[in-house]
Amino acid sequence: MTAVSESPRTTGIPAPAAEEVAPLDVDALRRFLDGAFVAEREACRAEFPADFFDPTDHLGTREHRDVTVDRLRRIARIGGHEKGYGRAWGGTEEPGAQVAQFEMLGFGDASLMIKSGVQWGLFGGAVQALGTERHHAELLPRILRLELFGCFAMTESGHGSDVASLGTTATYDPVTEEFVIDTPDPASRKDYIGGAAESAELAVVFAQLVTGGERHGVHALLVPIREDGRPRPGVEIGDCGRKMGLNGVDNGRLSFDGVRVPRTALLDRYAQVAADGTYTSPIEKPTARFFTMLGALVKGRVSVSGGSLSQTKVALSIAVRHALGRRQFARVPHATETLLLDYLSHQRRLLIPLATTYALSFAQDELMQTMDELLKVSLSGAEPDARRQREFETLAAGMKATSSAHATATIQTCREACGGAGYLADSRLPQLKADTDVFTTFEGDNVVLLQLVAKGVLTSFSQQVSALDSLGMARFATRDLVSTLAGRSPATSFVAELVDSGRDSGELRDRAWQLRMLEERRRHVVGSLAKRMRKARQQQEQTALAAVDALQDHVILAGRAHMDVVVAEAFTAAIARAEDPAVAALLQEVCDLHVLALLEREKGWFLEHRRMTTVRAKALTHAVNDLCRTLRGRAEELIGGFGIPEEWIVGRTLDVPSRPLDVRP
Amino acid sequence: MTAVSESPRTTGIPAPAAEEVAPLDVDALRRFLDGAFVAEREACRAEFPADFFDPTDHLGTREHRDVTVDRLRRIARIGGHEKGYGRAWGGTEEPGAQVAQFEMLGFGDASLMIKSGVQWGLFGGAVQALGTERHHAELLPRILRLELFGCFAMTESGHGSDVASLGTTATYDPVTEEFVIDTPDPASRKDYIGGAAESAELAVVFAQLVTGGERHGVHALLVPIREDGRPRPGVEIGDCGRKMGLNGVDNGRLSFDGVRVPRTALLDRYAQVAADGTYTSPIEKPTARFFTMLGALVKGRVSVSGGSLSQTKVALSIAVRHALGRRQFARVPHATETLLLDYLSHQRRLLIPLATTYALSFAQDELMQTMDELLKVSLSGAEPDARRQREFETLAAGMKATSSAHATATIQTCREACGGAGYLADSRLPQLKADTDVFTTFEGDNVVLLQLVAKGVLTSFSQQVSALDSLGMARFATRDLVSTLAGRSPATSFVAELVDSGRDSGELRDRAWQLRMLEERRRHVVGSLAKRMRKARQQQEQTALAAVDALQDHVILAGRAHMDVVVAEAFTAAIARAEDPAVAALLQEVCDLHVLALLEREKGWFLEHRRMTTVRAKALTHAVNDLCRTLRGRAEELIGGFGIPEEWIVGRTLDVPSRPLDVRP
Repeated sequence: MTAVSESPRTTGIPAPAAEEVAPLDVDALRRFLDGAFVAEREACRAEFPADFFDPTDHLGTREHRDVTVDRLRRIARIGGHEKGYGRAWGGTEEPGAQVAQFEMLGFGDASLMIKSGVQWGLFGGAVQALGTERHHAELLPRILRLELFGCFAMTESGHGSDVASLGTTATYDPVTEEFVIDTPDPASRKDYIGGAAESAELAVVFAQLVTGGERHGVHALLVPIREDGRPRPGVEIGDCGRKMGLNGVDNGRLSFDGVRVPRTALLDRYAQVAADGTYTSPIEKPTARFFTMLGALVKGRVSVSGGSLSQTKVALSIAVRHALGRRQFARVPHATETLLLDYLSHQRRLLIPLATTYALSFAQDELMQTMDELLKVSLSGAEPDARRQREFETLAAGMKATSSAHATATIQTCREACGGAGYLADSRLPQLKADTDVFTTFEGDNVVLLQLVAKGVLTSFSQQVSALDSLGMARFATRDLVSTLAGRSPATSFVAELVDSGRDSGELRDRAWQLRMLEERRRHVVGSLAKRMRKARQQQEQTALAAVDALQDHVILAGRAHMDVVVAEAFTAAIARAEDPAVAALLQEVCDLHVLALLEREKGWFLEHRRMTTVRAKALTHAVNDLCRTLRGRAEELIGGFGIPEEWIVGRTLDVPSRPLDVRP
Repeated sequence: MTAVSESPRTTGIPAPAAEEVAPLDVDALRRFLDGAFVAEREACRAEFPADFFDPTDHLGTREHRDVTVDRLRRIARIGGHEKGYGRAWGGTEEPGAQVAQFEMLGFGDASLMIKSGVQWGLFGGAVQALGTERHHAELLPRILRLELFGCFAMTESGHGSDVASLGTTATYDPVTEEFVIDTPDPASRKDYIGGAAESAELAVVFAQLVTGGERHGVHALLVPIREDGRPRPGVEIGDCGRKMGLNGVDNGRLSFDGVRVPRTALLDRYAQVAADGTYTSPIEKPTARFFTMLGALVKGRVSVSGGSLSQTKVALSIAVRHALGRRQFARVPHATETLLLDYLSHQRRLLIPLATTYALSFAQDELMQTMDELLKVSLSGAEPDARRQREFETLAAGMKATSSAHATATIQTCREACGGAGYLADSRLPQLKADTDVFTTFEGDNVVLLQLVAKGVLTSFSQQVSALDSLGMARFATRDLVSTLAGRSPATSFVAELVDSGRDSGELRDRAWQLRMLEERRRHVVGSLAKRMRKARQQQEQTALAAVDALQDHVILAGRAHMDVVVAEAFTAAIARAEDPAVAALLQEVCDLHVLALLEREKGWFLEHRRMTTVRAKALTHAVNDLCRTLRGRAEELIGGFGIPEEWIVGRTLDVPSRPLDVRP
C-alpha cells in the first residue's frame, strides 16, 4: 500500500535546480496546515481513543445510536468540548478550539461529530449565545457534563432555509405569565431535529413570539419535551427513522399543542417580555434583531464547513493510497501493470480535488480565527463590530456552501476512483459518502446560502455605488469598486491579457495574474448582476418577479465567483506566512494546481466574456497536466500533511481483509 | 402531492397557436416511451406484485439477502426471465423481452434486479452464449427454474476492467482429462462476484487456458464451488460484506487451489480441447477469439444501461412530485410561498436531467432492438455480422457509461433537490443513490468503456483514412470521413454559423443546426485525436507512452462526443416515428431542452474551438431558460410518461408518515 512509483516524474515545467529543492518535513507541513489551532488538534490526536474511529455502518439504527451516545459520554470525560463556553460555567472562552475538536472528530465517526455538534454546538451554543446568566448558570454546567441532553428545534417541515417564515407560535399569556407553544399546521412541525427522536429532554424552540396580540418575529425559547423517556403532555414526538447516513444521530419531529412554559423560558439576551407582556429589545429594528439572533449561531456553519473538509481528507487519503497500490493495464505487453496514480487522468481526478482541499483548509483556518475573535467579544457580553460580523456571516455561509459541495463531489470521485473496492463498506468510502451527503442541505441549503453570499457582496457593492451615484461617478467607478471591496488594488486592464496570450505556460503560474483573473470574473459577475437587478426592479411587479427569478443562476454564480477569490487569496496569504521553504515551495505548486484547474473548469465563462483567448485556454490544460505530473510524486507527502493518525485509518482501508458480515437475526 | 401550480406558464418562446396544441394522452406518451418492448413492459406492470417495490434499506444484510432470494423465486414462478433463452430449454428466443423485464425491476428493488441479472443474465447467459448443447441441456432448465444458483466469476482483485490480464489459470491435465484451476496470487482472487458469498453452487470461471504448456488466453469453465452450503475442496470463499448498496446481493470472493474439473467443463462454443490436450478453435486469431467470447456477453452492459435509466426515472418522479408540493419563500411579503418547481433554478436542476432521461431512453430502445436482433442470430447457432456486432459493442459500452453516469449525477441532484426530506430513507432516494452508485463501475468501469468507444470510432476512422491515404487524399477528406462514419451528409461549413450568430433564439431550436453542432464537435475531437495519436506513436517508446497517457482525457472526450451525437440522433429519429401529434410536439420541446442544455454545458469547448460566438453562447442560456419555463407546466405529464405504476411509488414517497424504525437488538 505504500508502494512507491517507479515512473519518472515527467513534467513540462522546468524542474527547479537541485539546490533549491529542500527535503520536505511532513510534520512541518502538517503543523502548518493545522493552522491557528494546532495545539488543540495535536491534543485530539493524542487523546482520542482509536476505537472512536471504528466503522459503524454495519450497525443497526438502535445499536448505532447507543454507540454514538456512549462515545459522546467519553468525549465529555476527555474534555475539549467545553472550551467555547464562559469560564464561569467550566469553559475556557476559546470557541475556535472547540470547533477544532469538532473538525478532528470528522476524521472518524461523522455521527459522533454531528451528535456532539447538536449537543454542544447548536443546543448549548444557543443557550450560551441567546440566553442570559440565569439560563447559563442553570443549564450550561449540566449540558457540558451531559446530565442534560437537548436539541435545537429550528427547521420545520415546510420551512427549512426560510427561518423568518417559521409557523410555530409562542403566545404570551400574562394571566399565568407563561408562553403557550403551538404548531398551527403540519408544515410547521419541527423536522429533522437531531436528538429529538430519543435523547433530548429540553429543546431550544424557534417560534413566532406573540404578546398582546402583536407578532414580534422569531425568538428562541426553552421547552421541555421529554421526561423519564416519554414525551411531555402536549408534545408529539416522531422519529425520522433510517437515513442515508448519520444513523447514530436520532433525528426527530416535534409538534406542540398548547404547551406552556414559564416566562423565563425565553432566551432573552436580545429581547425581553415583562410580566405584563410588554416586549422590549435593545435592538430596535425587527430585521436587525432577527439577524443578530441568527448571527449568534453562525458557528454551526463554520463547523459544517470544517467537518466537510475533514471527511474529504479521509476520503482522499483512502483513494490516493489505493491508487498507489492498485495496478491496472500494462503500458507495454508483458510489463508490470501501471499504478493507477501513474495515469494522468487518475492524477487529474484525485490531485485537483486534493489541491482544492488544501486551498479550502487555509480559507477555513482564516474563518476560524475570525469566528474565534468575534465570539470572544460576544462571550464577554459585548457586541462585535457590526461590519466585521456581517462580513464574517457572509464568509461563513460561503465556506459552508463551498466546502460541503466540495466534499460531496470529491468523496463521490474517490468512491469511483476506487472502483469495486470503493463500493465495499470496508473501504469506509460508502459511509463517508452517506454521512456527508446532507452537509449540502443542513445549516442552510447551499443554493440559499450562495444567494446570501451574493446578497452580502451586492450590499457592499450597492452601498458604494449609491454613494458614488450621488456624485455622478458610478458609471466610471464600478470597476474599481469591487476591487476596493476586496481590499486589493484595482485589476489591470485585461486588454493586455488578450494581447499577450502567446505567453508560455510558465507565466500562467504568476499568482498575481491568477488572482486578477478570478477578481475580474467576480467584478464582472457582480457588476452585471447589480445592473440587471436594478433593471428588474424598475419593471411592473409581475414582470419584476419573473425577472428576479431569471437572475437566480446569476446570483448563485456571483456567490461562487466571490468565494473563488476569497479561497485563492487565503491560500496565497497562507503561503506568504510559511517559514519552511520546502513547505512553501510545495504549497506554491498545490496552489497553482488549485487555481489553474479552476480557471480551466471555468474557461467557458472567460472565453464567453472575452477575458481569455483560445490559445490561453488550451495552455491552461497543459499547465494543469504538467502540475499533476509534478505533484504525483508528492502525493504521499500531501496526504501526510492532512495529519490523520495512521491508526485512525488502518484497519479500515482497502488492503484489509473483509470484516465479518453483520448477520444479526 | 398532486398539487397543480398556479403560476402562469411564462415563456419567451412564442406559444404555438391554440389550434396546434393537441391535448396530451399520457398513456400514449407512456406507450411511445416503452418502445419496441411495450407489451413486455405492460405485462410486468400487470404481473409484478406491488410488494416487490417495498423498501429494503431498513433491513440487515442477512434479512435483505433472504428477501431478495425469496423475491427472485417469485419471479421464477411469474416468468419472463426465460425469454432470452433457446426454445428447447424453455425460452422464447426474445432477448430484448428479457432485458425489458430486467429494466422494469429497476422501478423497484435494485437488489432484486441485479440478483436476477446475475443468475439469468450473466451466469445463465454465459452458459447459453459460450456453452454448447451438452451444457445447455444439462444446466439451462435448472438455472431457469432456480434449481441451480450460479455466479459469473470474471473480475479479479487486481484485474477489473482489464480482462485479458486475468491471473486465474486452467491447466489441462491429459492424464486425468481434467482442467486444474488455480489462483496464482492474491491479485488474481475473484472479487465482487455476485452470488458467490452464499447462494451459488456453480461458477462460470474465466481463466487463462493452458494446455501442453501453451497459453491460449482467457476462456470460461464451469467450476462447482459449493455443495450443501459449504465450499468444495480447494475452493476458498470470502464474503465482501456490507456494501454501499445492493445489500440484497451476496457478493463474494473465490480462490482456487488445484481444483479439478472434467474436460467437459470448458464452455466450448468458440474453443475446444481434445482428450489429448489438443486445442482447436473456429476463430483463428487469439484476439478475435477473445473479443468474440466477450462480445457474447454484451447483454450485461445493455442491461446496466437500462437499469440505470429506470432508477433515474424513479428518482426524478419523486423529486418532481416533491417540487410540486413543497413551497419555500414567498416572492412578495405575506403571499403564499412559492412552489419549488416554480423557481427557474429548480426547473433547471430537474427538468434538464428529465429531458436527458427521455433522450437516453430512446437511444436505449434502439440499442435493445439491435441487441435483440443480433442475439437472435447467435441463439440460432450462427454468428452475427461482424461489423454490426462491433458497432453494437461500441454502442453498448457507450450507453452503459452514459446512462450510469447520468444516473449517478441525476439521483444525487434529486436527493439534494428534496433537501432534508431527500436524506430520509422514507424518500427512497438514499437507497436509489446507494444502489446505483456502483453502476458506473461494474460491467466495465466508465473511464475504460469511454476509451473503448473512442477506440471503436477511431478504428473506423483510421481504416477509412488509411484507405484514402494510399490515394493521397487523407489530408483533404478527414472532415467528410467522420460524417460518413455517422451515416450522415457532411456538416456544412461553420464559418456561416459564425457569421449568422445574430440569429434569434427561435433558430437555436432548428434540430438540423443542433445536430450539426454536435457532429462538428465529434468530427473535430476524433480527427485531432487521430492526428495526436499518430504523432505520439512516431516518437521514442518512453516518450510515446507519456504522450499516449497525456491523450487519455482527449480519448474520453472523443467517446463522450460520439455518444452525444448518437443520443441526439436517436431522439430525433424517435420523434420522426411518433404518430400522435401531441406526443411529437411535446417531445420536440424535450429534445430541444436536452440538446441545448448540452450545448450550453459544453460551450467552453465550442468557444475555444471557435465553433460558437459569445452572442450565441448567451442566447443558448436564454433558450434553455425559456424551455424550462415552458416544460414546467408539463412536468407531471412527463413523469407520467415514465409509466411507473402509482402503487410502486406510493407509500414510499415524501408525503408519507415515517415507517417504524428498525430497532433490532
